[in-house]
Amino acid sequence: MAANEDASCLFCGIIKGTIPCHKVYETEYSYCFLDIMPTTEGHTQVIPKYHAETLGDLPDEYLRDIGPVLKKIAKATGVEQYNIVQNNGKLAFQHVPHVHFHVIPKPNETEGLVLTLGQNWPQKKVENDVLAATCAKIKNRL
Amino acid sequence: MAANEDASCLFCGIIKGTIPCHKVYETEYSYCFLDIMPTTEGHTQVIPKYHAETLGDLPDEYLRDIGPVLKKIAKATGVEQYNIVQNNGKLAFQHVPHVHFHVIPKPNETEGLVLTLGQNWPQKKVENDVLAATCAKIKNRL
Repeated sequence: MAANEDASCLFCGIIKGTIPCHKVYETEYSYCFLDIMPTTEGHTQVIPKYHAETLGDLPDEYLRDIGPVLKKIAKATGVEQYNIVQNNGKLAFQHVPHVHFHVIPKPNETEGLVLTLGQNWPQKKVENDVLAATCAKIKNRL
Repeated sequence: MAANEDASCLFCGIIKGTIPCHKVYETEYSYCFLDIMPTTEGHTQVIPKYHAETLGDLPDEYLRDIGPVLKKIAKATGVEQYNIVQNNGKLAFQHVPHVHFHVIPKPNETEGLVLTLGQNWPQKKVENDVLAATCAKIKNRL
Protein backbone atom coordinates (compact mmCIF):
# COMPACT_ATOMS: atom_id res chain seq x y z
CA MET A 1 0.00 0.00 0.00
CA ALA A 2 1.20 3.51 -0.80
CA ALA A 3 2.08 5.82 2.12
CA ASN A 4 -0.10 8.48 0.52
CA GLU A 5 -2.82 6.83 -1.52
CA ASP A 6 -5.53 7.96 -3.94
CA ALA A 7 -8.40 5.43 -4.20
CA SER A 8 -9.13 6.41 -7.81
CA CYS A 9 -5.50 6.13 -8.98
CA LEU A 10 -4.58 3.28 -11.33
CA PHE A 11 -1.00 3.11 -10.07
CA CYS A 12 -2.04 3.22 -6.39
CA GLY A 13 -4.25 0.20 -7.24
CA ILE A 14 -1.25 -1.60 -8.76
CA ILE A 15 0.86 -0.93 -5.65
CA LYS A 16 -1.98 -2.14 -3.42
CA GLY A 17 -2.47 -5.25 -5.56
CA THR A 18 -6.12 -4.58 -6.44
CA ILE A 19 -5.11 -4.01 -10.08
CA PRO A 20 -2.97 -6.77 -11.64
CA CYS A 21 0.43 -6.06 -13.20
CA HIS A 22 3.61 -7.76 -14.28
CA LYS A 23 5.68 -6.80 -11.25
CA VAL A 24 9.43 -6.73 -11.78
CA TYR A 25 10.79 -5.46 -8.45
CA GLU A 26 9.97 -3.37 -5.38
CA THR A 27 11.68 -1.65 -2.46
CA GLU A 28 10.24 0.03 0.63
CA TYR A 29 9.69 3.21 -1.42
CA SER A 30 9.44 2.14 -5.07
CA TYR A 31 7.47 -0.30 -7.23
CA CYS A 32 8.38 -1.52 -10.75
CA PHE A 33 6.19 -3.20 -13.34
CA LEU A 34 5.99 -3.66 -17.11
CA ASP A 35 4.22 -1.09 -19.28
CA ILE A 36 1.34 -2.94 -20.99
CA MET A 37 1.61 -0.66 -24.03
CA PRO A 38 5.41 -0.78 -24.43
CA THR A 39 7.46 1.13 -26.99
CA THR A 40 9.70 -1.96 -27.01
CA GLU A 41 10.25 -5.17 -25.05
CA GLY A 42 11.23 -4.48 -21.43
CA HIS A 43 9.63 -1.00 -21.20
CA THR A 44 9.21 -0.71 -17.43
CA GLN A 45 7.47 1.77 -15.11
CA VAL A 46 9.27 2.74 -11.91
CA ILE A 47 6.93 4.53 -9.50
CA PRO A 48 7.05 5.77 -5.90
CA LYS A 49 4.80 4.13 -3.29
CA TYR A 50 3.33 7.54 -2.64
CA HIS A 51 0.59 9.27 -4.58
CA ALA A 52 2.11 12.45 -5.96
CA GLU A 53 1.07 13.82 -9.32
CA THR A 54 4.40 15.38 -10.25
CA LEU A 55 8.04 15.18 -9.22
CA GLY A 56 7.62 18.52 -7.48
CA ASP A 57 5.05 16.99 -5.08
CA LEU A 58 7.10 13.93 -4.13
CA PRO A 59 8.90 13.77 -0.74
CA ASP A 60 12.70 13.51 -1.02
CA GLU A 61 12.97 10.04 0.59
CA TYR A 62 11.13 8.58 -2.42
CA LEU A 63 13.37 10.47 -4.83
CA ARG A 64 16.50 9.22 -3.05
CA ASP A 65 15.33 5.63 -3.39
CA ILE A 66 14.20 5.78 -7.00
CA GLY A 67 17.59 6.73 -8.56
CA PRO A 68 19.36 3.47 -7.68
CA VAL A 69 16.18 1.54 -8.61
CA LEU A 70 16.19 3.10 -12.11
CA LYS A 71 19.79 1.95 -12.56
CA LYS A 72 18.99 -1.57 -11.35
CA ILE A 73 16.01 -1.91 -13.71
CA ALA A 74 17.87 -0.40 -16.69
CA LYS A 75 20.66 -2.95 -16.30
CA ALA A 76 18.18 -5.81 -15.87
CA THR A 77 16.46 -5.06 -19.19
CA GLY A 78 19.55 -6.60 -20.76
CA VAL A 79 19.81 -3.82 -23.35
CA GLU A 80 22.92 -1.60 -23.18
CA GLN A 81 21.28 1.57 -24.51
CA TYR A 82 18.13 3.03 -22.99
CA ASN A 83 16.17 6.18 -22.14
CA ILE A 84 14.73 7.36 -18.84
CA VAL A 85 11.68 9.62 -19.32
CA GLN A 86 9.49 11.16 -16.62
CA ASN A 87 6.63 13.42 -17.73
CA ASN A 88 4.90 15.99 -15.52
CA GLY A 89 1.53 17.44 -16.55
CA LYS A 90 -0.91 16.68 -19.39
CA LEU A 91 0.74 19.17 -21.73
CA ALA A 92 4.01 17.31 -21.02
CA PHE A 93 2.46 13.95 -22.06
CA GLN A 94 1.69 12.58 -18.58
CA HIS A 95 -1.29 10.21 -18.86
CA VAL A 96 -1.54 8.75 -15.33
CA PRO A 97 -1.44 11.41 -12.56
CA HIS A 98 1.00 9.45 -10.33
CA VAL A 99 4.75 10.07 -10.77
CA HIS A 100 6.26 7.40 -13.06
CA PHE A 101 9.68 7.00 -14.62
CA HIS A 102 9.70 5.13 -17.93
CA VAL A 103 12.76 2.89 -18.40
CA ILE A 104 12.78 2.38 -22.18
CA PRO A 105 15.28 0.00 -23.79
CA LYS A 106 16.68 1.22 -27.14
CA PRO A 107 17.58 -1.96 -29.03
CA ASN A 108 17.57 -0.39 -32.51
CA GLU A 109 16.63 2.79 -34.42
CA THR A 110 12.92 2.12 -34.82
CA GLU A 111 11.93 0.59 -31.48
CA GLY A 112 11.86 2.43 -28.15
CA LEU A 113 11.97 6.21 -27.91
CA VAL A 114 12.58 8.09 -31.16
CA LEU A 115 13.89 11.64 -30.70
CA THR A 116 14.49 13.81 -33.74
CA LEU A 117 16.48 17.04 -33.42
CA GLY A 118 14.47 20.03 -34.61
CA GLN A 119 11.18 18.15 -34.40
CA ASN A 120 10.46 16.62 -31.01
CA TRP A 121 13.67 18.13 -29.68
CA PRO A 122 13.31 21.71 -31.03
CA GLN A 123 16.66 23.06 -29.80
CA LYS A 124 18.04 26.48 -30.70
CA LYS A 125 21.17 28.52 -30.02
CA VAL A 126 20.58 31.18 -27.34
CA GLU A 127 22.81 34.23 -26.75
CA ASN A 128 24.96 34.38 -23.65
CA ASP A 129 23.19 37.38 -22.08
CA VAL A 130 19.80 35.71 -22.51
CA LEU A 131 21.12 32.56 -20.80
CA ALA A 132 22.58 34.68 -17.98
CA ALA A 133 19.19 36.30 -17.40
CA THR A 134 17.44 32.90 -17.32
CA CYS A 135 20.09 31.54 -14.94
CA ALA A 136 19.51 34.45 -12.54
CA LYS A 137 15.73 33.88 -12.61
CA ILE A 138 16.11 30.17 -11.76
CA LYS A 139 18.64 30.83 -8.97
CA ASN A 140 16.23 33.34 -7.42
CA ARG A 141 13.59 30.60 -7.18
CA LEU A 142 15.87 28.00 -5.53
CA MET B 1 36.27 18.57 -9.45
CA ALA B 2 34.57 15.25 -10.20
CA ALA B 3 35.42 12.26 -7.96
CA ASN B 4 36.03 10.23 -11.10
CA GLU B 5 37.17 12.52 -13.89
CA ASP B 6 37.86 12.21 -17.62
CA ALA B 7 40.24 14.91 -18.90
CA SER B 8 38.64 14.90 -22.37
CA CYS B 9 35.04 15.16 -21.09
CA LEU B 10 33.16 18.42 -21.70
CA PHE B 11 31.00 17.99 -18.59
CA CYS B 12 33.97 17.09 -16.36
CA GLY B 13 35.51 20.38 -17.61
CA ILE B 14 32.36 22.27 -16.61
CA ILE B 15 32.39 20.72 -13.11
CA LYS B 16 36.10 21.59 -12.74
CA GLY B 17 35.48 25.14 -13.97
CA THR B 18 37.87 24.99 -16.94
CA ILE B 19 34.89 25.23 -19.32
CA PRO B 20 32.47 28.10 -18.62
CA CYS B 21 28.76 27.51 -18.02
CA HIS B 22 25.66 29.17 -16.62
CA LYS B 23 25.70 27.38 -13.28
CA VAL B 24 22.35 27.14 -11.52
CA TYR B 25 23.09 25.01 -8.45
CA GLU B 26 25.36 22.34 -7.02
CA THR B 27 25.55 19.85 -4.16
CA GLU B 28 28.39 17.61 -2.99
CA TYR B 29 27.40 15.05 -5.66
CA SER B 30 25.56 16.96 -8.39
CA TYR B 31 26.08 19.99 -10.65
CA CYS B 32 23.39 21.92 -12.56
CA PHE B 33 23.79 24.34 -15.48
CA LEU B 34 21.79 25.68 -18.41
CA ASP B 35 21.77 23.84 -21.73
CA ILE B 36 23.26 26.26 -24.29
CA MET B 37 21.06 24.74 -27.04
CA PRO B 38 17.77 24.66 -25.11
CA THR B 39 14.48 23.26 -26.36
CA THR B 40 12.90 26.07 -24.34
CA GLU B 41 13.85 28.69 -21.73
CA GLY B 42 15.10 27.09 -18.52
CA HIS B 43 16.25 23.79 -20.08
CA THR B 44 18.78 22.66 -17.47
CA GLN B 45 21.34 19.85 -17.27
CA VAL B 46 21.67 18.00 -13.95
CA ILE B 47 24.82 15.88 -13.87
CA PRO B 48 26.72 13.81 -11.29
CA LYS B 49 30.19 14.98 -10.19
CA TYR B 50 31.51 11.63 -11.35
CA HIS B 51 32.45 10.63 -14.86
CA ALA B 52 30.17 7.74 -15.79
CA GLU B 53 28.95 7.30 -19.34
CA THR B 54 25.58 5.75 -18.49
CA LEU B 55 23.26 5.42 -15.51
CA GLY B 56 24.36 1.80 -15.19
CA ASP B 57 27.94 2.91 -14.46
CA LEU B 58 27.08 5.51 -11.80
CA PRO B 59 27.61 4.72 -8.08
CA ASP B 60 24.40 4.75 -6.03
CA GLU B 61 25.38 7.70 -3.81
CA TYR B 62 25.23 9.97 -6.88
CA LEU B 63 21.86 8.54 -7.88
CA ARG B 64 20.47 9.08 -4.38
CA ASP B 65 21.50 12.74 -4.48
CA ILE B 66 20.31 13.52 -7.98
CA GLY B 67 16.59 12.72 -7.44
CA PRO B 68 15.91 15.53 -4.95
CA VAL B 69 18.07 17.86 -7.08
CA LEU B 70 15.92 17.18 -10.16
CA LYS B 71 12.84 18.12 -8.14
CA LYS B 72 14.46 21.30 -6.85
CA ILE B 73 15.52 22.42 -10.33
CA ALA B 74 12.18 21.50 -11.92
CA LYS B 75 10.33 23.67 -9.38
CA ALA B 76 12.82 26.53 -9.82
CA THR B 77 12.23 26.74 -13.58
CA GLY B 78 8.93 28.35 -12.63
CA VAL B 79 6.99 26.24 -15.16
CA GLU B 80 4.40 23.81 -13.74
CA GLN B 81 4.69 21.17 -16.47
CA TYR B 82 8.03 19.66 -17.48
CA ASN B 83 9.85 16.56 -18.69
CA ILE B 84 12.86 14.76 -17.25
CA VAL B 85 14.87 12.91 -19.91
CA GLN B 86 18.08 10.95 -19.47
CA ASN B 87 19.58 9.24 -22.54
CA ASN B 88 22.08 6.36 -22.43
CA GLY B 89 24.09 5.47 -25.54
CA LYS B 90 24.46 7.06 -28.98
CA LEU B 91 21.57 5.07 -30.43
CA ALA B 92 19.48 6.44 -27.53
CA PHE B 93 20.41 10.07 -28.45
CA GLN B 94 23.16 10.63 -25.88
CA HIS B 95 25.58 13.21 -27.28
CA VAL B 96 27.95 13.82 -24.33
CA PRO B 97 29.25 10.60 -22.74
CA HIS B 98 28.76 11.78 -19.13
CA VAL B 99 25.41 10.99 -17.43
CA HIS B 100 23.07 13.99 -17.70
CA PHE B 101 19.43 14.49 -16.82
CA HIS B 102 17.62 17.07 -18.94
CA VAL B 103 15.06 19.13 -17.01
CA ILE B 104 12.88 20.51 -19.81
CA PRO B 105 10.10 23.01 -19.05
CA LYS B 106 6.93 22.49 -21.12
CA PRO B 107 5.34 25.95 -21.33
CA ASN B 108 3.19 25.24 -24.41
CA GLU B 109 2.60 22.67 -27.17
CA THR B 110 5.40 23.71 -29.50
CA GLU B 111 8.28 24.49 -27.11
CA GLY B 112 10.14 21.93 -25.00
CA LEU B 113 9.90 18.20 -25.64
CA VAL B 114 7.36 17.10 -28.26
CA LEU B 115 6.28 13.45 -27.96
CA THR B 116 3.86 12.01 -30.50
CA LEU B 117 2.19 8.66 -29.85
CA GLY B 118 2.91 6.19 -32.63
CA GLN B 119 5.82 8.23 -33.95
CA ASN B 120 8.50 8.96 -31.39
CA TRP B 121 6.57 6.93 -28.83
CA PRO B 122 5.79 3.82 -30.93
CA GLN B 123 3.68 1.95 -28.37
CA LYS B 124 1.78 -1.25 -29.08
CA LYS B 125 -0.52 -3.64 -27.18
CA VAL B 126 1.31 -6.79 -26.06
CA GLU B 127 -0.39 -10.06 -25.03
CA ASN B 128 -0.33 -11.10 -21.40
CA ASP B 129 1.78 -14.25 -21.91
CA VAL B 130 4.41 -12.26 -23.82
CA LEU B 131 4.58 -9.70 -20.99
CA ALA B 132 4.87 -12.53 -18.45
CA ALA B 133 7.84 -13.99 -20.34
CA THR B 134 9.56 -10.57 -20.51
CA CYS B 135 8.91 -10.03 -16.80
CA ALA B 136 10.55 -13.36 -15.95
CA LYS B 137 13.62 -12.50 -18.07
CA ILE B 138 14.10 -9.13 -16.32
CA LYS B 139 13.63 -10.63 -12.84
CA ASN B 140 16.27 -13.25 -13.61
CA ARG B 141 18.76 -10.46 -14.33
CA LEU B 142 18.10 -8.49 -11.11
